[in-house]
Parts: sequence; C-alpha cells; structure tokens
Amino acid sequence: MTGQSIDAARLLGRIRTLGEIGRDADGRLIRLAASDTEKLGRDRFVGWIEGAGLEVAVDRIGNIFGIWKPEGTVDAAPLMLGSHIDTVIGAGIYDGCYSTLSGLEVIETLKAEGLTPSRPIVVAAFTNEEGVRYAPDMMGSLVYAGGLDVDTALATIGTDGTVLGDELERIGYAGEHQPEFLRPHAYIELHIEQGPVLEREGIPVGAVEHLQGISWQRVVITGDANHAGTTPISMRRDAGHAAARVVTFLRDRAQASNTPTVATVGCMRFEPDVINVIPSRATFTVDLRDPDEERLKEEEAALAAFLTGLSAEEQVGVSVERLARFEPVKFDQRIVRLVEKAARDRGLACRRMTSGAGHDAQMIARIAPSAMIFVPSIGGISHNPKEYTADEDLVAGTSILLDVVRRLATEGLPA
Amino acid sequence: MTGQSIDAARLLGRIRTLGEIGRDADGRLIRLAASDTEKLGRDRFVGWIEGAGLEVAVDRIGNIFGIWKPEGTVDAAPLMLGSHIDTVIGAGIYDGCYSTLSGLEVIETLKAEGLTPSRPIVVAAFTNEEGVRYAPDMMGSLVYAGGLDVDTALATIGTDGTVLGDELERIGYAGEHQPEFLRPHAYIELHIEQGPVLEREGIPVGAVEHLQGISWQRVVITGDANHAGTTPISMRRDAGHAAARVVTFLRDRAQASNTPTVATVGCMRFEPDVINVIPSRATFTVDLRDPDEERLKEEEAALAAFLTGLSAEEQVGVSVERLARFEPVKFDQRIVRLVEKAARDRGLACRRMTSGAGHDAQMIARIAPSAMIFVPSIGGISHNPKEYTADEDLVAGTSILLDVVRRLATEGLPA
Ligand SMILES: NC(=O)NCCC(=O)O
Ligand SMILES: NC(=O)NCCC(=O)O
Repeated sequence: MTGQSIDAARLLGRIRTLGEIGRDADGRLIRLAASDTEKLGRDRFVGWIEGAGLEVAVDRIGNIFGIWKPEGTVDAAPLMLGSHIDTVIGAGIYDGCYSTLSGLEVIETLKAEGLTPSRPIVVAAFTNEEGVRYAPDMMGSLVYAGGLDVDTALATIGTDGTVLGDELERIGYAGEHQPEFLRPHAYIELHIEQGPVLEREGIPVGAVEHLQGISWQRVVITGDANHAGTTPISMRRDAGHAAARVVTFLRDRAQASNTPTVATVGCMRFEPDVINVIPSRATFTVDLRDPDEERLKEEEAALAAFLTGLSAEEQVGVSVERLARFEPVKFDQRIVRLVEKAARDRGLACRRMTSGAGHDAQMIARIAPSAMIFVPSIGGISHNPKEYTADEDLVAGTSILLDVVRRLATEGLPA
Repeated sequence: MTGQSIDAARLLGRIRTLGEIGRDADGRLIRLAASDTEKLGRDRFVGWIEGAGLEVAVDRIGNIFGIWKPEGTVDAAPLMLGSHIDTVIGAGIYDGCYSTLSGLEVIETLKAEGLTPSRPIVVAAFTNEEGVRYAPDMMGSLVYAGGLDVDTALATIGTDGTVLGDELERIGYAGEHQPEFLRPHAYIELHIEQGPVLEREGIPVGAVEHLQGISWQRVVITGDANHAGTTPISMRRDAGHAAARVVTFLRDRAQASNTPTVATVGCMRFEPDVINVIPSRATFTVDLRDPDEERLKEEEAALAAFLTGLSAEEQVGVSVERLARFEPVKFDQRIVRLVEKAARDRGLACRRMTSGAGHDAQMIARIAPSAMIFVPSIGGISHNPKEYTADEDLVAGTSILLDVVRRLATEGLPA
C-alpha cells in the first residue's frame, strides 16, 4: 500500500522559506495573526497551493483552504489536514508551518502518484492559532467548528487595539465563505511536539491521543500610585507587589504539586511604570493547563481564592477577565491506531502521548474524528528562536502522515 | 521685620495654570524632562520671570535661573530658591512647581516692597529632577553642583531612547552658560512634603534637617523563552518568575524590619510579553531608600546576595546597573533654625523632619549651606493626580519662605 514518497527537499525548502517571512530588524520571527507579515506568509502559502493545482477558498474568519477535489469525489466530506501560519513573537520556524506545509506536501505527493481518493483532501491554515494578538487561541478553528460566532470573533480587539475583522479586510483575507461551507470527514494534524518527551525517550513519532485543558485569564490589580521615597511600607497599596505575589503563588503551587499542572504568567505590565512611583495598576495574564478537567477547575478555584485573599490583605482591587477556556480533548482512537500502525509499518518507534500545547485539532475534534502526530522538538524548546526538529524527523513524520492519509482517503475511517 | 505679604491669588493662580500644562488625552499630567510638554511649562515659567523684571539665564544642562540683581549687589554670591518643572507620569500639580513658583513669588514680593538685598536673589528651575525619563534624578542640580560632568549628563539615554542633550537642543533649552557660572551663598527649597507626617500630626510647617539616601538600580534577568503549555515546571528558566521573587523579597524584608527602609519596584517589563510564552527576560527597577547610610548599604548588599542566590536557584542570568546613588544629607542647621524661628514668629507649629523624597536641595547642599521647608500633603499622597495641599498651607509656607529669605537677603547667614 505504499506509493510514491514525499519530496523531502521541497518540504524542507518551503519550511525554511516561510521561516524567513516576518523577521524584524533584530532577526526575530514575528507573524502575528492578520498582520502585514502574516499576510506575506499567507500569500506565499496560497501561491504554493495554486502551484499544486488545488482550489483556494477563504472563509469569513480568514481560514485558508487548499482543496484537492478529483473527479467523482465532489459530494463526499473531505479529509482535512492543517494547522496555522501565524506565530508568537520571537518564534521558531516549525510551529504551525511544518503542519500546514506537510499537509500540502502529502496532497501533492498523492496527486502525483495518481491516487484516486474516495473524497476530497483539504489542507487548511486556520486564523490566529497562537492567540497572541487576539484571544482566544485556536480562534479560526474554533469559529470553523461552530464554537464561537464569526461576528463575535471578527469584533475581537487585539493587544495592540486593532480589530481582527478590520485587519483581515486590510490584508485581503476576509473571505466570502461561511465557516460551515466545508465539513470534514476526519482531521489529522502533524505537528512538532514543542515539549521534551519524544526527544528524551528517543522516539521519533508520537500518536497524540489527548490534549490538555487550557485556561487563560487576564488579571488587573489596582492600588494607589504614590511616592517611592515618602510612603511608608504600611501605607502602600502596591499593585505591582500584589501582582508579584500572584506570580510566586502560581509557581509555588505548581511546583509543590505532584501533578502535570503548569501555570505561566507571560505578560506583565505596571502603570505608570515609573521608577519612583508605587505601581497603581498591574495587568498580567495567567495561562493554566492540566490534562484533567477536574484538576484544572481546582487550579482556577485556587487562583480565585488567592486573589480574594490578596485583595483584602493588600487592599487592592482585583478584576479578572476570561480570555480562553478549553476542556481537555480525547482524540479519535481509530486514527490514533492508524498512526501507530503506519509507524510500525515503517519500522519507527511510536508512543501515545498527551499534547501540552493547544492545537487546531482540539477544535476540529468537536465536529469530526481527529487526531495528531508529533515529531520530536530538540530540548523541548518552542515559542523560541531555538525551536528545532531534525530534518530526518520532519520527513519521517510527513511520511507517516502520507501513509495515514492514503489509507483514510481510500478506505475511510475503520468501523 | 515683616514687610509686604505675598500675593496669594497670583501664586495659587500660577500653580493651577502650570498644573494644566502637559495633560494628555486621558487628563494625566505628564511633563517629562526636556519633552514637548515640559518645554511649554518652561516657556510659561520664563514668561513669568521676565514679567517680574528678572534676568533669565539658562546653563548647558538646561537649568533656568531667574535673577534679581538690584544695583550694588552685583558681585555677591546670590541667595537661591528653586526646584523643578518636570513631573512624573500621572503627576500632581504641586511637586516642584509649588517650589519654583513660591520662589518667584517671594522675589516679586521683596522687589515690590522695595527691599534692598545685600546680594542677588535667584529662583532656579533645575532640569530633570524626577529622573523618570533620564536617570539619575536631581540631574540638573547634580551637574550644577559639580557632582556629574555636564557632557556625560547630556549624553544620557532616556527610557524612550532619546538623548538628553538632543532633547534640550530641540526644545530650545540647551543654554550657553557653564553650570558653574553662578555659585549660591545659600539655598532654600520650599516643597510639599509628599509624605504623611505633617498632616497626621496636624503641623503646618516642617523644617527639613535631613534627607534620606537614595539607591536606584536597574536589574535585568534572563531566562529562556519556552512554551507555556509544554514545558514542565522543573525545566523552566522563567525570568518573570525570578523577577517576581525579587519584588516579594524586597517587600518582605522592608516589612519585617523595624527601620524606615523603603523599597519599591516601579518599572517592570517582561519579554517577549506573550501570554503563552515563558518570559525570557524581565527588566525592572529597584528604588531603595534609608535615612542611614550604613543601613542603606546593608540593604543593597542584601539585595545583591539575594540576586546571587536567585541566579543559581532559578538558573537565570542577572545583571545590575546603577542608575542613581545619593548618600543621606544633613542640611544647614542655621537655616533650619531660621525656618523654626519664622514659623514661631507667625504663630505656626513647626517640626524638624527628614525628607523621604529626593530634592534639588540635596545636591546644592554640596556647594552651599542649604535647607528645606515642607508643607502638608493631604493623605501623604504624591506622584499621583490626587496629590493635594490646602491653599492655606501653600500660602503659609510661602510666607515662611518670604521671612527667611528677607532675613538672609539682608543679614546673611548667622555666624
Ligand atoms: N501549538 C501552539 O503553540 N499553540 C498555541 C496555543 C497554545 O497552546 O498556547
Ligand atoms: N521630590 C521628588 O519627588 N523628587 C523626585 C526624586 C525622588 O525622590 O524620587
């Protein structure tokens, strides 16, 4: 059942080409959702889709679809591959791009080998997966899966004050299609692990069967600006100090527990941000994750209780805004087993695993059987310029994806 | 020995007028040193100096002098009053402005009453007292007093990347005079207390005999950016968390001690400042103050030791830059006693006190007998739009200044 193999040079060349689009003066890779640099990345991706002879469609939330619809498959629900083109600030080149480009690579390979699939095969690049500029993350796939109204999503205000819908118009990716226009039969996303497990265990392929829950909150603490030199410690209502207590609380709690809970404060801002003024306001984000929904709820409750106590102890105001909340997801066991089988058939070690990162597959799992394939991230480093996966692993992962897609495209999902 | 009294309406009107110069769209008062808004404040002050018939002089660091040099006083060292026109971000209207405008008010009053002083009387507005845009604070008076080379000071790079010298050129306040051109016989600065002591004790006048030591440092912590969802707590090198530990360390230490030590972290910045990225870098300021030099050194040493331990424990890089360091100052007892006497003569309660804030008097004390007069700050609030001193107290303070200056201008410093 194996046919042609993928064009490794084409795949790796495209990853590197896309990885140079969006570098700033300091060499940092920044392709924030719906920004000028992301537009350049989108344009390049669309060019490759067209070059491969696929049809391009864009929906209202800006998701891009490259559709391979051979004769006779028109009415069947498509098999979908994909991920995203947007990045964080100071990103690596693989997160998202490897996934979309390997999806395209698999379609081009199957097309070239003359496969006659029983349904269309589609590669998707979903809008704003990272959630850095606009929250929540995985927004495009969430809207696509019906989990968020498209007009609400388009009205989202970004960290830079922009409105997502305006930005999509501006960069020319506010599409005509309603997000429902295309419903997948199944969805598979190949991605770098972004964590340390596969490399540590020396295993080249992960069959991802779970994805942990994600809770994002923005906290604003308000105290009183006052003079750093004249205000006795006992009279201070220091919003910055209160915020620092939240950071250490979250870390101490996660560290003391024997659970995989992780907690991160990634954004922090003091106001007025002046050396000799006690901060009157501190704004920060909290990213809480846990593979277990009950435990994630407990962590959220513990934070809420801590904030209530803090407000009284420090005499500060506390307000909390929810930015994203996704329950843990269990992927489709049939696809997970197909991934394991494809690895076995190629003589590659494979382990089942849980994803620590959020992914578009997590959203698409609401409307179609979905799963993911992981390849190792050296040192477990991601969201960092040092993010790296060996070419060999990139090619192996894409070959596994090819095998699984060929199987699904001809025989459909196992009963 | 009392003559004419001050023109309270003129003084209060000017304070309010200057207090409207530099408000942003949100109504926040911001006149950062050598900025466009501070230029407007300077221009207004210069206009009032000229209107009062005084000579205007500007030195190379941008200090403005309004000189009353009646016939026959030309060769004597002047008596100097003054403070600054720059503000913090989100300032009140009194800090600095009350001082400069009351200085001018006293000169105009003495001029109007026909006093023949034995030496010139000068009101000064020193550049960049707040130190918010360019460190150190009290920069203009420090340069004036010979504590910092003028060319070094002019080359200072601001928090916004500007160069102080360029900005002074741009706003038209890079003067011709060498800072040494005018050496004072004595210096007196009337200021709002900015702290809670006078109001709490119901005393309208403070005779300031000490000013505490100030230590400003900028700390940069470097860790590793990594993915918030996939990176186990044990593998993190989280610069943000390490910075938060410094904030709580400083507060806990100050709170546990029975000393007047104060410690403030006013500025804080995380990079890349992204919700799902562990901070790779945290930059923050530390403002440490103590009336006792030995204790201030101990506090600096304790912070340094903590940072060393933190670097090892959190596996982060730590670098520290000194932004300002001033030892505690003891003011001239003769002037302090003159202030007490003037208050007594007017039937006003007066207490000796220590200044928690830094002031230009602290710098001028290096080259001339100096002291300060304080008036109450309601609620001890300063560096805050709610900064407030009752009109009555503003007028009383200026009247005390008038009496002290009249005495010094005619009889000179007591032996
Ligand atoms: N894969 C990935 O980095 N997704 C971004 C959303 C998140 O997990 O923070
Ligand atoms: N008086 C005053 O607020 N000075 C600014 C310098 C400081 O003490 O922080």
